[in-house]
Amino acid sequence: MKRIGVLTSGGDSPGMNSALRASVRAALALGWEVIGVHRGYSGLISEEFQRLDSRSVSGILQFGGTILQTARSKEFFLDEGRRKAVTIIKKNGIDALVIIGGNGSLTGALKLHELGVTTVGIPGSIDNDLYGTDMAIGVDTALNTIINAVDKIKDTASSHDRAFIIEVMGRESGYLAVMSAMASGAEFAIVPEVPYDIKAISGKLRRRYEEKRSNSIIIVAEGATSAYQIEKELRDEIGFETRVTVLGHIQRGGSPTVFDRLIASQFGYFAVDFLNKGGSGKMVGLVKDDIVFTPFQDAISRVRPIKKELLTIMELLGT
Amino acid sequence: MKRIGVLTSGGDSPGMNSALRASVRAALALGWEVIGVHRGYSGLISEEFQRLDSRSVSGILQFGGTILQTARSKEFFLDEGRRKAVTIIKKNGIDALVIIGGNGSLTGALKLHELGVTTVGIPGSIDNDLYGTDMAIGVDTALNTIINAVDKIKDTASSHDRAFIIEVMGRESGYLAVMSAMASGAEFAIVPEVPYDIKAISGKLRRRYEEKRSNSIIIVAEGATSAYQIEKELRDEIGFETRVTVLGHIQRGGSPTVFDRLIASQFGYFAVDFLNKGGSGKMVGLVKDDIVFTPFQDAISRVRPIKKELLTIMELLGT
Amino acid sequence: MKRIGVLTSGGDSPGMNSALRASVRAALALGWEVIGVHRGYSGLISEEFQRLDSRSVSGILQFGGTILQTARSKEFFLDEGRRKAVTIIKKNGIDALVIIGGNGSLTGALKLHELGVTTVGIPGSIDNDLYGTDMAIGVDTALNTIINAVDKIKDTASSHDRAFIIEVMGRESGYLAVMSAMASGAEFAIVPEVPYDIKAISGKLRRRYEEKRSNSIIIVAEGATSAYQIEKELRDEIGFETRVTVLGHIQRGGSPTVFDRLIASQFGYFAVDFLNKGGSGKMVGLVKDDIVFTPFQDAISRVRPIKKELLTIMELLGT
Amino acid sequence: MKRIGVLTSGGDSPGMNSALRASVRAALALGWEVIGVHRGYSGLISEEFQRLDSRSVSGILQFGGTILQTARSKEFFLDEGRRKAVTIIKKNGIDALVIIGGNGSLTGALKLHELGVTTVGIPGSIDNDLYGTDMAIGVDTALNTIINAVDKIKDTASSHDRAFIIEVMGRESGYLAVMSAMASGAEFAIVPEVPYDIKAISGKLRRRYEEKRSNSIIIVAEGATSAYQIEKELRDEIGFETRVTVLGHIQRGGSPTVFDRLIASQFGYFAVDFLNKGGSGKMVGLVKDDIVFTPFQDAISRVRPIKKELLTIMELLGT
Repeated sequence: MKRIGVLTSGGDSPGMNSALRASVRAALALGWEVIGVHRGYSGLISEEFQRLDSRSVSGILQFGGTILQTARSKEFFLDEGRRKAVTIIKKNGIDALVIIGGNGSLTGALKLHELGVTTVGIPGSIDNDLYGTDMAIGVDTALNTIINAVDKIKDTASSHDRAFIIEVMGRESGYLAVMSAMASGAEFAIVPEVPYDIKAISGKLRRRYEEKRSNSIIIVAEGATSAYQIEKELRDEIGFETRVTVLGHIQRGGSPTVFDRLIASQFGYFAVDFLNKGGSGKMVGLVKDDIVFTPFQDAISRVRPIKKELLTIMELLGT
Repeated sequence: MKRIGVLTSGGDSPGMNSALRASVRAALALGWEVIGVHRGYSGLISEEFQRLDSRSVSGILQFGGTILQTARSKEFFLDEGRRKAVTIIKKNGIDALVIIGGNGSLTGALKLHELGVTTVGIPGSIDNDLYGTDMAIGVDTALNTIINAVDKIKDTASSHDRAFIIEVMGRESGYLAVMSAMASGAEFAIVPEVPYDIKAISGKLRRRYEEKRSNSIIIVAEGATSAYQIEKELRDEIGFETRVTVLGHIQRGGSPTVFDRLIASQFGYFAVDFLNKGGSGKMVGLVKDDIVFTPFQDAISRVRPIKKELLTIMELLGT
Repeated sequence: MKRIGVLTSGGDSPGMNSALRASVRAALALGWEVIGVHRGYSGLISEEFQRLDSRSVSGILQFGGTILQTARSKEFFLDEGRRKAVTIIKKNGIDALVIIGGNGSLTGALKLHELGVTTVGIPGSIDNDLYGTDMAIGVDTALNTIINAVDKIKDTASSHDRAFIIEVMGRESGYLAVMSAMASGAEFAIVPEVPYDIKAISGKLRRRYEEKRSNSIIIVAEGATSAYQIEKELRDEIGFETRVTVLGHIQRGGSPTVFDRLIASQFGYFAVDFLNKGGSGKMVGLVKDDIVFTPFQDAISRVRPIKKELLTIMELLGT
Repeated sequence: MKRIGVLTSGGDSPGMNSALRASVRAALALGWEVIGVHRGYSGLISEEFQRLDSRSVSGILQFGGTILQTARSKEFFLDEGRRKAVTIIKKNGIDALVIIGGNGSLTGALKLHELGVTTVGIPGSIDNDLYGTDMAIGVDTALNTIINAVDKIKDTASSHDRAFIIEVMGRESGYLAVMSAMASGAEFAIVPEVPYDIKAISGKLRRRYEEKRSNSIIIVAEGATSAYQIEKELRDEIGFETRVTVLGHIQRGGSPTVFDRLIASQFGYFAVDFLNKGGSGKMVGLVKDDIVFTPFQDAISRVRPIKKELLTIMELLGT
């Protein structure tokens, strides 16, 4: 191994810069050369390359987003585009790729691996929908951003004795919804993994209303339904007026938390260590506090079930 | 003067608790008795009263919302309701009212004043649409909440080279939009006071796009139009894809900033001082760094024009 | 089981209120009665009791500190004091105690357990020096407070090209120092578990200085030595001028992070579940993502070694 | 005018980057050329110059510190050094300088002005000790950093019923101390402008102690005395045990608040406008919400008195 490329792909998540810094410095410490690929697979195909030294990644670990930028590439979706990428990788003497991203990015990494390119993946995705890691980079920061927002909304909810419905990210996974509901003391979480029962929700809201506790919080994962839909159903069901907030893109940004910086730094370090030991085709992850490597195929296709027990505890505590 | 009532009314804003603490302690220092009225005019009519001492307002100045809660009262909108309120005020031996709130709340205060109740108003409203004060309580906190959100969104905007449209509060006033646009380095602010020109905006976006600077931020005041409308117009006009975020109720909450705690504390203190000197029917405010008192009638009906010069500077700096 | 007491003891840590809320609501859900004991063991002896219902713990999980307050009790240090405590526990019909705190608090819990009182412990201590849990309540919040402070100091360090020495908490354990050094991209961490080598540090600083990178950050755990001592040694050794900041008590406060709210909520819930199943004399904890129970004796006397591998990675990344 | 230089000097303060961005873009809009001078007067003498275009200052307004860096220059303190600076300015065809900094920086600016260099100053200093502006860039951010720290310490102060002494910056001015005391609900502020009376303080502490309110906060400006001195005096006087926290350099850093970004942007814009109108030898400032220009001589030598009325109100409210 002499020369590796690093790229960030798909939706950005806080901590990608920390992972980038760690993988660059770990590679340099092995005496390798590092090429930063700008704008993900798109920049790979168009050869947007930059030689990275230790200083190129100085002072970036505390910033959200990714200094390499990211993009979605239509060309890379096609076989031809991917073969072009392989040619470019070879032409530039790149021996291996570190790919930081979510489900789509690792699907691309798998394709490259199948075409003979040495690759390692680092999970970066606030949805936390990858198998093979308990937490992807950015999830902890996104959760803290969500509860800071919910804490602010609770000021108004308490002052006005009002119910709020808050929509958070999570297309396939209710992870953000369940965890933020528990951490913010919400009364309900509505998630893709479990069908919701509007009668049960309206019944509990009504009971709380009768006890003069009208300031409820309902967290909805975007993959389950929309907050506006729940608002409508509650109005139709019990004539209950609620307010809706869709948190949107603020969930992706911000300075990464300690946890995200720590896992990102370790993922970056161990991903390079994995390449150094001759590995390829796997994603680094944290499972029960251990660094583990999972084949791309499993990481992108297997499902990490939601802990239903947490949902039960959450509802019991948010009485 | 022996006994005063204090209430918070209308939409909550960060710093109301600081104003409450200050007015209670200033009144106690004069040897007065203080009655906290819960849930605004609604609680006034239903006599939701609580005697407040120094300790009742201990440790609250740093919290958003209002410990007295607030509510909208249909009954108080009618003459009969207001006359009932006057009867209750007299029955309880309340010599004066301190009313903390926005436009609607001070309209109520004016009505009570006209019915012979001694009243003083404290401006609390994140829209900053009251005449007679440069800043209402909560505006500075709301602005900081907005730019923290915009800073986070800029992480993604930079990483993806994308344009974002962000909708902020402000039904009648573009104050929050102009100030947050300037403070976040946004490229555009769309406000109720100035008609927007979608061709000028799309022209500048196109020029930036050609210079490979696609990560623009457009701030829209809800009173001008909706962010979704601008998104549609830009798509129709130049086929430009943008993302929308509606900040919503997070703008109302959170721990008040230093500025809001300072003006709230002074407003509370000087409002009581004003009552002590025999005043009534006015709102305390800060104009060019001086404490001034403005008749309710002016505060709620006159318009504080937006500083168009700032809009010009903002657009020049956000080149 | 019919009636339990809950108390917080020792240094406060963010998330104690979340644990309190969870244990109260979990107990109420079992039909039990809950007594809040104010001011730790001191209040236990002087019977500062308050009946807690679901609402008593409403809206507290997002606040730092502890609504039950905490105190150090000289009386409880003595056999006589503890026997008095047992008498009071029996007199008040308290069947079991939930004790939230650090090393000293759990030592007290062990003594009560030995005197026949049913007890369960919840680890709350920002030092993270308890055996039997990977993380105590408050550690994640303290780490985030530390790196926010370090991020601010790095602004000045970069602007002035200066080295800063930052002292963090940790009497016996370098956990906070290592983790915050790694998460903030510091160049060095000085910890109680590993003797420091001032020549190695000054050598690296000198090398960085020659490469015109003078803006180093050194994190010192209070238990290793003082920041002022390191400052003096560096001045004597290489005539290097550095700045010192002692973070102090801000590390104990603040709204708990998501992680702290989540473990606190689960610890509270499972501590009560443990009592319900007839347990006593153990501390709940999180080990490799599983809820486990550890005898008090082990929790307070066994040592959780620092992960030296992390120290190595940290130094490699902070090149 | 064709070509101007911009430099930041002295202690850094949050918002300097916003002022830099604004002055660069305002100058470019006039068709001027802009030279960024690195490391203050030191870099001026050693010609550390960089041509700045619009993009050089993109995406910096939200960051603390200064991208141009700052330094203290011994050479510039001497006549010879300053004459050298003038020669370099002429040699490089620099027609005017924009100098962003505090008292020492503007003293340097005055000297250059007296030597015939066209100069304009922008006040950046968290101490807020310049005459000619109500607020210097960075003060509002520093105040918010202080109260966030005090809010955290209050968690522990309340939980333990303890008194804390917190030392803040301010060598000549008690501005930060008074304002942060008022904004955090502290009981006392000790400032350089007013002699403190330890008997009055200990008397009030004792009275509060007897009322079982022991959780007092005392804010001390570093220019008045040290927090440790007050701690000692209180121990000697009434045997009162207090805790000390010295906030230190965290007060200088962090992302600037809205207020600081707004004044910095306006100061940058109007400083360039002032040069364009042929001005020199003055500092831009904000006085009672108006942009004003004050001769350097006055800005650095005249004293802006502390508002003693605020001190009185603060003590009354912190009863």
